[in-house]
Amino acid sequence: MKLTILGCYAATPRSFTNPTAQVLDINNHLFMIDCGEGSQVELRRNKIKFSKIKHIFISHLHGDHCFGLVGLISTFRLLNRDTELHVYGPKGIKEIITLQLKLSSSWTNYPLYFHELESKESQLIYEDDKVTVETIPLKHRIYTNGFLFKEKPGLRKLLINEAVERNIDVALYQSLKMGKDVVNNDGETIANHLVTTEPDPSKSYAYCSDTMYYPEIIPQIKNATVLYHESTFLEENKELAEPTKHSTAIEAATIAKDAEVKNLILGHYSTRYGSILPFKSEAETVFPRVQLADDGKSFEF
Amino acid sequence: MKLTILGCYAATPRSFTNPTAQVLDINNHLFMIDCGEGSQVELRRNKIKFSKIKHIFISHLHGDHCFGLVGLISTFRLLNRDTELHVYGPKGIKEIITLQLKLSSSWTNYPLYFHELESKESQLIYEDDKVTVETIPLKHRIYTNGFLFKEKPGLRKLLINEAVERNIDVALYQSLKMGKDVVNNDGETIANHLVTTEPDPSKSYAYCSDTMYYPEIIPQIKNATVLYHESTFLEENKELAEPTKHSTAIEAATIAKDAEVKNLILGHYSTRYGSILPFKSEAETVFPRVQLADDGKSFEF
Repeated sequence: MKLTILGCYAATPRSFTNPTAQVLDINNHLFMIDCGEGSQVELRRNKIKFSKIKHIFISHLHGDHCFGLVGLISTFRLLNRDTELHVYGPKGIKEIITLQLKLSSSWTNYPLYFHELESKESQLIYEDDKVTVETIPLKHRIYTNGFLFKEKPGLRKLLINEAVERNIDVALYQSLKMGKDVVNNDGETIANHLVTTEPDPSKSYAYCSDTMYYPEIIPQIKNATVLYHESTFLEENKELAEPTKHSTAIEAATIAKDAEVKNLILGHYSTRYGSILPFKSEAETVFPRVQLADDGKSFEF
Repeated sequence: MKLTILGCYAATPRSFTNPTAQVLDINNHLFMIDCGEGSQVELRRNKIKFSKIKHIFISHLHGDHCFGLVGLISTFRLLNRDTELHVYGPKGIKEIITLQLKLSSSWTNYPLYFHELESKESQLIYEDDKVTVETIPLKHRIYTNGFLFKEKPGLRKLLINEAVERNIDVALYQSLKMGKDVVNNDGETIANHLVTTEPDPSKSYAYCSDTMYYPEIIPQIKNATVLYHESTFLEENKELAEPTKHSTAIEAATIAKDAEVKNLILGHYSTRYGSILPFKSEAETVFPRVQLADDGKSFEF
């Protein structure tokens, strides 16, 4: 998995900071998460091929997470896209986009599907042969979901020497990788675990922005490979986090620690701070493996 | 008048070109014209004070002219604006903006007024003591207006020596500037033209984008100080101008020539061209006083 941060600052786009948008690449399949104003320019800057984006997940309808969506959809049209696009987001997103396409007489010439969300329970909203995506219900000022991207478990690893030694036909290797016992050329049943080992552990990415400190999410994101958690404020502005329903770096780190995730990435910084480095140092007082998102930065895991 | 070009390229925002937006400063009163995606960032880059913008004129509802509006309106809110904002644009613009504010629970905390346009005839849509703004009905794929900004005629210029010599009371000078005849201290009526001269000629700015070649606008923009006219295409792509209802540089220059404007500024270039210089040279074959708009460029007139 490769995560590219197009923007990770709160509120208003500025000359050198962008509102939230990111692209998660899972085996060359690109998932876009949130789409603040200017995201299409950031996609270009980061040399991400527009046509590879087939699924866009919108966490909530605050402008810094979605005002770039209609422009991106329109640009796809101007680029003569023909592959379909699926947009997942809160109820209302379809009306916002289609109203603008209608009033500009600019219907897309590619199939555009909306998957509107309104459940307050976690839902499986996407699945293919390699990946699932579930909503993570968050607690913010308006209806908001995070998203949990999980690789499906891979195939078991074949111990080729063991298989040869046990006189197993090559045609049965795929069955072995899928965990089945097989009958060898001598008519003996060979238990799967004798000739295979566990697959590589599946990776997962939990995106949680925007939200107040909300420990209810912990069971769902338990042991995630990477947690991206918003940290709009530093401890010195903790009093702002509660009324705006945002989190501090310490609160994000507390979620990471209690969920026993492998890595924490912080983002969604308020633009009031001159430097983002204190977010890392504050979070590290609670949880050791902290990285800072920044516009244009990529993470591979 | 000072015109600042925030963006002047057609269609899609890119890393180094912006869609249409500009700010016209008339005696320190700022009028914004169109608001493509990213315009708020360009306002910052050009150090234009957000709070001074009280009137935004949207020509039409294609995305490259209006997708930045909702973000700008939201940012005004985050900046705790209290002065009112007036938005003039095609019918539907109010629904587009209010739907998004509603779904994000982000109503403005300042007064926001929409002035929706649907007339196909020119209308006076704004007037204060110094300026009028009229729509210029254009011909494009959807309902589109240009805008004609006109300074009102100034006061006549007092010939102070002549007034003293004719023994006119100082209290009457304002009446003279306003063009009235007055009675002097000797009881004689003094004809206004003996002690005043014509005011400075009023300036005007005609903004015409997007439109096909449409000579019906000529009487309205006759003798304008500056005409900004779209020139999406060069002559080599003339065949694209007709179906998309855009203009070539030569067509823009022909309008400038026939309307006898003082200066022509070209803009709204298709992003297909490596250089914009040929727009100038092509237009100059028809009309001599051509300037090229470019992002971040200002014109004083």
